[in-house]
Amino acid sequence: MSSRQSDLQFVRGQKDRYEEELKALCAIPSISSEPAHRADVARAAGWLADRLRAAGMRAVEVIPTGGHPVVVGESPAATPGRPTVLVYGHYDVQPGGPRERWHSEPFDPEVRDGGLYARGAADMKGPTLAAVAAAEAVCREGPPPVNLRWLLEGEEEIGSPSLPAFLEAHAGRLRADTALNLDAGMLGADRPTITYGLRGIAMVELRVHGPARDVHSGEYGGVLHNPAQALAELIAGMHSPSGRVTLPGFYDSVRPPDAAERAEMARLPLTPDNLLAETGAPALWGEPGFLPAERVGARPTLEVNRLTAGPVGEGMMTIIPGQALAHISMRLVPDQDPEEVYRQMRRYLEEHAPPTVRWEAELRGAAQPALVPRDSPATKALDAALETAWGVRPLYQRCGGGIPVVTHLQTILGVDSVLTGFGLPEDNVHGPDEKIDLATWHRGIEAVVHFFHNLAG
Amino acid sequence: MSSRQSDLQFVRGQKDRYEEELKALCAIPSISSEPAHRADVARAAGWLADRLRAAGMRAVEVIPTGGHPVVVGESPAATPGRPTVLVYGHYDVQPGGPRERWHSEPFDPEVRDGGLYARGAADMKGPTLAAVAAAEAVCREGPPPVNLRWLLEGEEEIGSPSLPAFLEAHAGRLRADTALNLDAGMLGADRPTITYGLRGIAMVELRVHGPARDVHSGEYGGVLHNPAQALAELIAGMHSPSGRVTLPGFYDSVRPPDAAERAEMARLPLTPDNLLAETGAPALWGEPGFLPAERVGARPTLEVNRLTAGPVGEGMMTIIPGQALAHISMRLVPDQDPEEVYRQMRRYLEEHAPPTVRWEAELRGAAQPALVPRDSPATKALDAALETAWGVRPLYQRCGGGIPVVTHLQTILGVDSVLTGFGLPEDNVHGPDEKIDLATWHRGIEAVVHFFHNLAG
Repeated sequence: MSSRQSDLQFVRGQKDRYEEELKALCAIPSISSEPAHRADVARAAGWLADRLRAAGMRAVEVIPTGGHPVVVGESPAATPGRPTVLVYGHYDVQPGGPRERWHSEPFDPEVRDGGLYARGAADMKGPTLAAVAAAEAVCREGPPPVNLRWLLEGEEEIGSPSLPAFLEAHAGRLRADTALNLDAGMLGADRPTITYGLRGIAMVELRVHGPARDVHSGEYGGVLHNPAQALAELIAGMHSPSGRVTLPGFYDSVRPPDAAERAEMARLPLTPDNLLAETGAPALWGEPGFLPAERVGARPTLEVNRLTAGPVGEGMMTIIPGQALAHISMRLVPDQDPEEVYRQMRRYLEEHAPPTVRWEAELRGAAQPALVPRDSPATKALDAALETAWGVRPLYQRCGGGIPVVTHLQTILGVDSVLTGFGLPEDNVHGPDEKIDLATWHRGIEAVVHFFHNLAG
Repeated sequence: MSSRQSDLQFVRGQKDRYEEELKALCAIPSISSEPAHRADVARAAGWLADRLRAAGMRAVEVIPTGGHPVVVGESPAATPGRPTVLVYGHYDVQPGGPRERWHSEPFDPEVRDGGLYARGAADMKGPTLAAVAAAEAVCREGPPPVNLRWLLEGEEEIGSPSLPAFLEAHAGRLRADTALNLDAGMLGADRPTITYGLRGIAMVELRVHGPARDVHSGEYGGVLHNPAQALAELIAGMHSPSGRVTLPGFYDSVRPPDAAERAEMARLPLTPDNLLAETGAPALWGEPGFLPAERVGARPTLEVNRLTAGPVGEGMMTIIPGQALAHISMRLVPDQDPEEVYRQMRRYLEEHAPPTVRWEAELRGAAQPALVPRDSPATKALDAALETAWGVRPLYQRCGGGIPVVTHLQTILGVDSVLTGFGLPEDNVHGPDEKIDLATWHRGIEAVVHFFHNLAG
């Protein structure tokens, strides 16, 4: 087995090669959402399989699914008794988007000012290759410090539709003690970040019905309860004036962050200035008594995603619409349950919908919230790895959104993930001029080397 | 001059032809609000000009305006001293709306169960052609009983923007003692109805802006005021819990109906049972202290005509929309003024819109409310005509909708209108499956023949 120091030595000597490899992978336009790029997605899978083999991995396979393939493989066996890490990554990318907003071709990687600019550089071909590079280092000379298994999918950007069935079909070869997910990014070049919480979601379609059809607002205005108005009244009532969600029991099973966690959250750079600059909103808003970072990460919310009532088009039509629709989603935190929150929504509607309209509600989507224990061996190993690589204590954040694969790994394989990443807020993931900061990326490779060694104990 | 009896005989013999003509006119999708149908609107104007000429009218012209054209013409001169009637009609229609909610094509007229189904059949190609048919009958043999002048516009459904300037420019050729307007409908197949009041309208487009673009509801849910939610809150606040409009000063200039008028209104068949059967709504709603007929005719209202927020499409997208839009229209009664009501709306928004969103409001359309004298010679002639044709005393109603032209004719030409119509409450004007009941329509043609003769004295 190689030593930590020789592994670090090794990766420091390979920077040029790693960068050339990252350019080669980023040059493949593996856009999973565009059927025209299907062959490119497959090409990226093949490229990664070759790279895993070159890195000393065994049983590497590109396994077809109903959609894009999954690349799997494993390291040579570690010393018996060592833990197994399932390394998750994805090799598909978003479309390049408007060419004129890029300063170089999205699929012709270019290094400028220490950044490698290409679609997918940060999300997440760079982080995926960082894990491969670290694995290559620790597998060079005899058994690695930990067993590694690989799960590299090609459908992350389209919602991982084939993944749950794949995990069920291949549960045996994916067994692991922990999963490493480098798709969560970091909050600044000097702010290594561990993401330990993901919000769940309950997505509800609500329809309010009034007259059986759109009717003339002159003929019936004054005698019918307009369903668009009734929907507005119902939605308005879903928050208290102060901004708390009013669904009955909504907060009952919310696990409040403890003092230590709140102190960690107060360190996060989710300041009002940053949030306003990022969104262009005129002011912040939200539940009183909690910091922005807490409101986004540790508190549940209710959002109207879509409103529709009345005929489509531009012109004003003086009708009372026959129905009005809202898509409403609740972001959930432990220990909320999406089905229970949906029942709370129905209870709210039963209590507040007036008899002058009818309503229907349907649960359109659900995901459990996730919290990864902050005191698990894997989290501690990651914490120490990041602190060693960066020389600062990592930040701990809860992510306001969900990462479906984390939930799938937890529910289907029973494996908890540890999440970090080497993409920066300014790396413009999903936007033009996506890049990865190369110094940060190389530091990230070292951090993964540390993580593997730390986990070995 | 032909006799009343021979004229009635004549129209009774032409029913098939009249129906074919109505089908031909309804087959033209003369949707004034959609630029793509501009040529169709012009085609409908040309069709009507031809029909007027075939009916024996003179000086028929299709006169261009800044918008859609106006068709004018006149009858051969009546015996000197006879009054002149300005017959108003419109040949433009609302869009068909969602095709799947129609049982036949909106612009491929179909007769089913005694009704002719097509967009515009009742509103108001049918009533317009009824007047043309009656005019043809009374002009067949020598001078007609009264002088007729025609004013057929193509912009009624978009608020008649070109009409005021047109009336001013052509006041000379439109001079008349009274105007006949058949755009007001009737309250049942056995309930001929004279409409003597019209509600005005103020149409407002309200946009609420939050973040500069749609943003991820996971990343920002909890720190931004969702503009769709803020819009719902603003709309919800526009009515008190009891159903009164809360815009500041909204009821200040509302003229209350007197006791006699309230007694007439109590005769109207706007019973809860009828209104529920017509609309399919689960219950009635509205301002306390007033009968349904009063709430529709003599009280102002505020309606949400359209709500839009979030991306178009079916799938749920977990975003906070960058903006939300509502089309809101206020139906007005004397002596409210649309511009003043628009200012009340702005005042409401200034007082209630939170600083966490931005808003814009625009007055998209306006019409003054109108009240027509109930004791004029023309009203009496119409009263007798309807009673003769139907064998029952007509009802008197204030119409909940507006007919801007009535106001324009009164203020610009100094001509009062008498209003009735042959569309029934169940004819679904502006909705899917619009129709006209053919037996009612033919009876209406006879009523117009009677009206022309009655007015001659």
